Amino acid sequence: MQLHSNVRVICEPMYGEIALLSGNANRPLAEAISRELDLPLIGADVFRFPNQNIFCRLHHSVRSKDVFVIQPICVTEHEDGRVSSVNDNLMELLIMIDTLHRDSAGRITAVVPYYGYGRTDKKDQPRVPITARLVADLITVAGADRLLTMDLHAGQIQGFFTIPVDELTAFHTLRDHFRPKEIPDLVIVAPDIGGIKHARNLAQALHAPLAVIEKRRVQREDGSVAKALNVIGDIKGRNVIIFDDEIDTAGTVAQAVVFLQEAGAKSVYVGVTHAVFSDPAVERLSSVPIEEIVVTDTIPLPLRKRMPNMTILSIDKLLAEVIDRIHRGTSVGELFGE
Amino acid sequence: MQLHSNVRVICEPMYGEIALLSGNANRPLAEAISRELDLPLIGADVFRFPNQNIFCRLHHSVRSKDVFVIQPICVTEHEDGRVSSVNDNLMELLIMIDTLHRDSAGRITAVVPYYGYGRTDKKDQPRVPITARLVADLITVAGADRLLTMDLHAGQIQGFFTIPVDELTAFHTLRDHFRPKEIPDLVIVAPDIGGIKHARNLAQALHAPLAVIEKRRVQREDGSVAKALNVIGDIKGRNVIIFDDEIDTAGTVAQAVVFLQEAGAKSVYVGVTHAVFSDPAVERLSSVPIEEIVVTDTIPLPLRKRMPNMTILSIDKLLAEVIDRIHRGTSVGELFGE
Amino acid sequence: MQLHSNVRVICEPMYGEIALLSGNANRPLAEAISRELDLPLIGADVFRFPNQNIFCRLHHSVRSKDVFVIQPICVTEHEDGRVSSVNDNLMELLIMIDTLHRDSAGRITAVVPYYGYGRTDKKDQPRVPITARLVADLITVAGADRLLTMDLHAGQIQGFFTIPVDELTAFHTLRDHFRPKEIPDLVIVAPDIGGIKHARNLAQALHAPLAVIEKRRVQREDGSVAKALNVIGDIKGRNVIIFDDEIDTAGTVAQAVVFLQEAGAKSVYVGVTHAVFSDPAVERLSSVPIEEIVVTDTIPLPLRKRMPNMTILSIDKLLAEVIDRIHRGTSVGELFGE
Amino acid sequence: MQLHSNVRVICEPMYGEIALLSGNANRPLAEAISRELDLPLIGADVFRFPNQNIFCRLHHSVRSKDVFVIQPICVTEHEDGRVSSVNDNLMELLIMIDTLHRDSAGRITAVVPYYGYGRTDKKDQPRVPITARLVADLITVAGADRLLTMDLHAGQIQGFFTIPVDELTAFHTLRDHFRPKEIPDLVIVAPDIGGIKHARNLAQALHAPLAVIEKRRVQREDGSVAKALNVIGDIKGRNVIIFDDEIDTAGTVAQAVVFLQEAGAKSVYVGVTHAVFSDPAVERLSSVPIEEIVVTDTIPLPLRKRMPNMTILSIDKLLAEVIDRIHRGTSVGELFGE
Amino acid sequence: MQLHSNVRVICEPMYGEIALLSGNANRPLAEAISRELDLPLIGADVFRFPNQNIFCRLHHSVRSKDVFVIQPICVTEHEDGRVSSVNDNLMELLIMIDTLHRDSAGRITAVVPYYGYGRTDKKDQPRVPITARLVADLITVAGADRLLTMDLHAGQIQGFFTIPVDELTAFHTLRDHFRPKEIPDLVIVAPDIGGIKHARNLAQALHAPLAVIEKRRVQREDGSVAKALNVIGDIKGRNVIIFDDEIDTAGTVAQAVVFLQEAGAKSVYVGVTHAVFSDPAVERLSSVPIEEIVVTDTIPLPLRKRMPNMTILSIDKLLAEVIDRIHRGTSVGELFGE
Amino acid sequence: MQLHSNVRVICEPMYGEIALLSGNANRPLAEAISRELDLPLIGADVFRFPNQNIFCRLHHSVRSKDVFVIQPICVTEHEDGRVSSVNDNLMELLIMIDTLHRDSAGRITAVVPYYGYGRTDKKDQPRVPITARLVADLITVAGADRLLTMDLHAGQIQGFFTIPVDELTAFHTLRDHFRPKEIPDLVIVAPDIGGIKHARNLAQALHAPLAVIEKRRVQREDGSVAKALNVIGDIKGRNVIIFDDEIDTAGTVAQAVVFLQEAGAKSVYVGVTHAVFSDPAVERLSSVPIEEIVVTDTIPLPLRKRMPNMTILSIDKLLAEVIDRIHRGTSVGELFGE
Repeated sequence: MQLHSNVRVICEPMYGEIALLSGNANRPLAEAISRELDLPLIGADVFRFPNQNIFCRLHHSVRSKDVFVIQPICVTEHEDGRVSSVNDNLMELLIMIDTLHRDSAGRITAVVPYYGYGRTDKKDQPRVPITARLVADLITVAGADRLLTMDLHAGQIQGFFTIPVDELTAFHTLRDHFRPKEIPDLVIVAPDIGGIKHARNLAQALHAPLAVIEKRRVQREDGSVAKALNVIGDIKGRNVIIFDDEIDTAGTVAQAVVFLQEAGAKSVYVGVTHAVFSDPAVERLSSVPIEEIVVTDTIPLPLRKRMPNMTILSIDKLLAEVIDRIHRGTSVGELFGE
Repeated sequence: MQLHSNVRVICEPMYGEIALLSGNANRPLAEAISRELDLPLIGADVFRFPNQNIFCRLHHSVRSKDVFVIQPICVTEHEDGRVSSVNDNLMELLIMIDTLHRDSAGRITAVVPYYGYGRTDKKDQPRVPITARLVADLITVAGADRLLTMDLHAGQIQGFFTIPVDELTAFHTLRDHFRPKEIPDLVIVAPDIGGIKHARNLAQALHAPLAVIEKRRVQREDGSVAKALNVIGDIKGRNVIIFDDEIDTAGTVAQAVVFLQEAGAKSVYVGVTHAVFSDPAVERLSSVPIEEIVVTDTIPLPLRKRMPNMTILSIDKLLAEVIDRIHRGTSVGELFGE
Repeated sequence: MQLHSNVRVICEPMYGEIALLSGNANRPLAEAISRELDLPLIGADVFRFPNQNIFCRLHHSVRSKDVFVIQPICVTEHEDGRVSSVNDNLMELLIMIDTLHRDSAGRITAVVPYYGYGRTDKKDQPRVPITARLVADLITVAGADRLLTMDLHAGQIQGFFTIPVDELTAFHTLRDHFRPKEIPDLVIVAPDIGGIKHARNLAQALHAPLAVIEKRRVQREDGSVAKALNVIGDIKGRNVIIFDDEIDTAGTVAQAVVFLQEAGAKSVYVGVTHAVFSDPAVERLSSVPIEEIVVTDTIPLPLRKRMPNMTILSIDKLLAEVIDRIHRGTSVGELFGE
Repeated sequence: MQLHSNVRVICEPMYGEIALLSGNANRPLAEAISRELDLPLIGADVFRFPNQNIFCRLHHSVRSKDVFVIQPICVTEHEDGRVSSVNDNLMELLIMIDTLHRDSAGRITAVVPYYGYGRTDKKDQPRVPITARLVADLITVAGADRLLTMDLHAGQIQGFFTIPVDELTAFHTLRDHFRPKEIPDLVIVAPDIGGIKHARNLAQALHAPLAVIEKRRVQREDGSVAKALNVIGDIKGRNVIIFDDEIDTAGTVAQAVVFLQEAGAKSVYVGVTHAVFSDPAVERLSSVPIEEIVVTDTIPLPLRKRMPNMTILSIDKLLAEVIDRIHRGTSVGELFGE
Repeated sequence: MQLHSNVRVICEPMYGEIALLSGNANRPLAEAISRELDLPLIGADVFRFPNQNIFCRLHHSVRSKDVFVIQPICVTEHEDGRVSSVNDNLMELLIMIDTLHRDSAGRITAVVPYYGYGRTDKKDQPRVPITARLVADLITVAGADRLLTMDLHAGQIQGFFTIPVDELTAFHTLRDHFRPKEIPDLVIVAPDIGGIKHARNLAQALHAPLAVIEKRRVQREDGSVAKALNVIGDIKGRNVIIFDDEIDTAGTVAQAVVFLQEAGAKSVYVGVTHAVFSDPAVERLSSVPIEEIVVTDTIPLPLRKRMPNMTILSIDKLLAEVIDRIHRGTSVGELFGE
Repeated sequence: MQLHSNVRVICEPMYGEIALLSGNANRPLAEAISRELDLPLIGADVFRFPNQNIFCRLHHSVRSKDVFVIQPICVTEHEDGRVSSVNDNLMELLIMIDTLHRDSAGRITAVVPYYGYGRTDKKDQPRVPITARLVADLITVAGADRLLTMDLHAGQIQGFFTIPVDELTAFHTLRDHFRPKEIPDLVIVAPDIGGIKHARNLAQALHAPLAVIEKRRVQREDGSVAKALNVIGDIKGRNVIIFDDEIDTAGTVAQAVVFLQEAGAKSVYVGVTHAVFSDPAVERLSSVPIEEIVVTDTIPLPLRKRMPNMTILSIDKLLAEVIDRIHRGTSVGELFGE
């Protein structure tokens, strides 16, 4: 008599039933994750009053639920033309967390695919803030129990948190995009020395050499100071992938493309995780010859910023899988064979 | 021999030399306080990068100084048309505090003449945030040692802080504006029942009776729900001052003016501390007959929002005096004969 | 073969098995809740040593249990004549929480039907404490994970806590007591302007008008200051329900009753949640004509304080239901159709 | 020309001007300290409302002052017959600290000559609290910056605090009282094994031998359990000083006196720092022959508890001296030649 | 039809699946516990880099697991001759906790059979640390959720923690070793007055009398100061068990043995929980006549420190049983009939 | 009459009188700083008991003093052959801080010239600690008010602290050593890609080009994995300075020297701030041809590790100057013209 096989007992994991909440920063991504997990987003009104104060009202209780609140800290251009600033989206995240905490959520995981203010991560001059640490404290004091994020500007930002952090990477996604192309005579280029580690990882994965562009202040004859580019490593006659964590105004990248071409590169691809694309990124990128610009959808890209030579890879499946693993308490590292 | 008179020893107070810093939320007020104290504002770059990340760089060290950072949490329309949102100004405040803290300021007092998000101070429905508490935590975690603010939406917000708070009031300023007018047949009206304490204080100070407007949901014959106004107290044939802590979109006030007139009021004045004036406040206030609208400059009012019948009272001298007393360690309460 | 229907698997909720602990502040209420939940109170000795130090010793382990400790912060007159002061009961609560925490309770919910010190919730004069915030910090530092309370003096007190709070209300209980009476010509009166919101809610629920009694300092001809009552709103010839959150010494209510009668009210009912009844409340209430005084049992009322015209409504079922929902992780708000 | 001698510059120490505040627990001691320091106590109303809620209102600002708030955690019988319980006095202390903190005191030192709840300092059985640690947390969360106390029940209690603690001792005061008596054939007796360290210190200072009374559970023939006393060490024909940190109900001490006499002691003195004297201490102590009972005034002893053979040594000068040293930032340890 | 008996559903306890991790301080004990629980230790590399920085790398994820990390804070002499210092083992513990916390362990219990630095638990002289409290803070800030320890030097150390602590004792283990011997004319001796409580417990359990050795500074004729031993209580012609919590350098114990023999003791046994055995403990213990030295394995004893007259009792079963109870959420106290 | 010039009033700065304390990690440096400041080190016993527990006892009170405690987190080989491990020195630092805090120091600045565990600053693989953050928390929880350190492995480590941090750099010291040499055909080389920013700064300061050595895993024909070096940038026929923040075992540097020579470099200099020099650093460095190895004295270098071609630059004057500025509350940044 084999009763066991007829009895299916599903105990809820220890942090309660899973639930997903999305703010307004990247609803398309949140909806894609929701579809992947076959789990509807929590009904909620997250909006601004006329005095611009953000408000949040959940339609149903999240008491004792294991809630994942999805909100990158980026600029969002909504379809109706309204824009949520970085600070609006950050504050919206904090207010959603406070709401969940005060509604007795069992556990709150802030899912922040793009961690804004990440580049202000150290005092490289006196009398400046370390805003990336401040943001970590804001998220924590609001009541988050965990953070799930992607490709931090510096790995040390994880250490700004005392709550546990899962940092994912779009590296495998981007690598798997470029590898099948089998680009000949390839070299991976870091557009500045800060990004050399990032670029090195791709170089190693694609068995390509590495080069790095150095920008240096040069004193001119008249005493004024200019910045001059220089490439360290060999790019002449080669096909190049400029690889970095994000494109902001594209100033550095666009300069790099021109410089590389003048220096004899055959063609240039660009691959980054985060498409920040602050103005005038699109103008700049359109004006230089790039074979393909590959980004992900951690940040929602409005139609006006999509270019013909742009490929957007979605990280929805990756995030969905990891959210599920966090919820069920299984290893995230093993997902990447680590 | 009178040597003493020739020797002037000035010991620095225990929190170090005084210093003033202003963000971009209300520079005119900060400059007026600076003039009153005969103390220049700290040179600093507080600006947004193209990716909207706010940055702060002090021109000189504030090590061991007693710094007052002036920044209301409001919307600011700058002269060049740019707008800083409530969240931008709040984040700017937090980043300035972090900068001061990491530059070893001796003491940091957040001077927040208008405490935004103050109306989200309790859960009057389930599954909503208490953002006024969240903001208190954000200011504290960023590193502020004290708060100096004015006319909080509810006095209890002071209890949201563990750091010491000085809450000033523009009540005396407004009272001293109305008292000399000796308006006959005066009645003070609270525009809704939440504001009745505020109105009662003025009623008592001007020896005038008190009335309150009540808004109530009424079920109509067809089952739908409407809101109906009702005045509790006697206003017929009287001159009215509507008194409150702030005007936001002016919906309540404008309705009240019309309603009071229909109910037989002779004339209507309006007095509030905080001129939030979210759209369409000006349109609404312009379309109803108000004798005089009296506000203060806790929030900067752009030219387009100034109306002919508006009087703006400055609280610069009050803030300057109190900042000086906090710095010198003398009583603030005694300033008001308390 | 339908095995499923024969197999009932009850997984313990994620905070462990439920357990109830009562201090000495309101054992009758705790026992009623225990009966409702069909769950015996934890055996425990909670007593004072001869040096008045309170001690607590649990008879059995609460390791990994979901404990609800029931203790209002009130004065308790025990049957044997002994009196526990407000501070004794508060300290007893804190010591029980410490005991539970150090015995490794899975979760500790402080069930505080009456939140003492709630009226010291803001600095309405300088150089005073905000004891309601202090009490919040004491409960938290002792080790409570949550608070369950009723009809706080001000909703903002919820924001004094960072741990989640469930604030219930006896409003529905009181409303459902008065509604069936169908009192004609009814008006709801707030006994002072601070209680107007509370009264307004009942007015709206019973479709009755609202009035408020204002107490104002008046300067007499000889220069001395007196306090004069004034009613704002129409009460003449009407039946009145004075509605508030609590009756303390009954000074305000007794004065109001007399004043209302002189002003022409036909009859007066009184309804409040919390029967604090500090001396000489009973003397005062007995000396004025009140139709019915309706209170709840958040605070235990000794026999000597029970009056013939008094109705005590129990909130035991309400608390039992909510404790069960908190334990099972289901919505509390939905209990009230919210 | 010797100008220097004519110029006296007094800089305020770094924590601001010194100020003393007393609660109601031991005003006579506070007034004696005030006289010693020639510094009046801060004017303040510290009282209970009819609902027993303690309130505190300072007459003048303590902004930036270095405040010492004097309040033992004991029972106080006031002259008018009212009694403040241990919990009342503790709560009064916490509320005064909150008031000082919110009035922006520069530094707050809790001066607690008797640290109540000190005997609940460890879990010597399961499922009990460690209230001495809880009290440390309460004092800290209320806002105290330092603690000044005397003769803690266990030195480890100092480690319950993260704020700095100065623990004084009345040991020298008591020693200097007994030494000049040159009592012959002296032995110092610890009334139970927990107090042996205390007694040893006096034995060493007076070059006397040491003995200790052991209380042990003994199983009787009928299976019941009794407690039997036993003295370890030699006391026959000797004069005894029973030495301990406090007398509570005097049960242990009175038993010890009887036991020692039966065992052949010639005479018995008693010396302790803290005269807790819970009922029926006086009855017990009066019924056994004690040469002299020596205590200090850390706890106020009402007239009805003063006995003919009692000597009360004041620790006012000691506390005054140490408060002054803490204020001026000079060594406290050196006061005792350490 | 009795289906129930055929269905066994095992729900994971609320802190997740149990897991054991061992550092390098006492692997034999950890392995014995692992065998008792039939649960393998987590695979992990815990090692020192050439620069002596300790590193920890777990082979598999502990996400949502209930992890017990076993590491006494002692000196460890490894078989290969390397020595881990007290500070190395403490730091290793902290780093393992940080690793577990950042790998999202569900709950982390630090299992510290010997709590080093426990003797620095109070300021018995000025200007010294309270390191036992510091260590408590270090363990907590690293991320431990609970502590499981044995025979703390002072019970108050439990109050140094805010996280829950389970303090076990080897008392029953040692008692059960000595009781069957039925040693005649037995007396239990505390080797100094600080250990008298410990010794009293054994005296009571074995129905034996108690004595204590007092060490006192004596001034010699030439003015120099010596220390002289003295026994309080009767030991002549008796068999003695010296009982304490730990043996460090064995100076006190060895002196006591010699002194007791000279004073007429027939034989001497020694029983302690923690075999610290700092040099020259073995030399000292070998040079005096001891019947039997009984210790436990809270600290690993290298072969060179094992003596012929030494009995090592293992506390592996006790720890295994308690770990299992903590994991399953059942009472620990009841294990000892408490 | 010029009285002013005759009157010198020295007010103590707001954190009290300055005081220096040194642990055992780098006493020569502490003594050099002491000489520079003409301020003796605080007398203190900082030692290990036989059980290896570190203890600290100050000879005089530091009450209200502004204490700087100097202790790098490194290995120290003492002259007598004893070795303090990294963990010993870290723990010694924490215990000294606890001692100072409990002795009521006015302010405590941890002066940590070498911040050990700095290389474990991020999770570059799963299931590892971020020890550099842990160390920050340990220093903070022990009671430090500030940190003064030098050349952190990553600037982000400053963000691991909430207390203010002053990070100095030996960059100027090293630059000023190399600049006057006017080495021709110079190229600055980063020995791995992690150090490229560091090297770039020197390259810019000396107007030299930059190169970087890349180490990459290469799969050999037999499937095994080897590491191969590669230089990016031009070094042939050039004189090289390898520039980094520290030398640990010198494996990377020694490999780099050999590789550079084989690749055609003319000569190789090495410059680093921190001479960690873990075994076998000296052996490795001695076996390759290096023109000059330039380090500083942040870490004490025992005689046996000093090599003929080594130059040790002292940072004593720099630290002394900065300590004085922090004490006096003047800008540190301006010291470097920033």
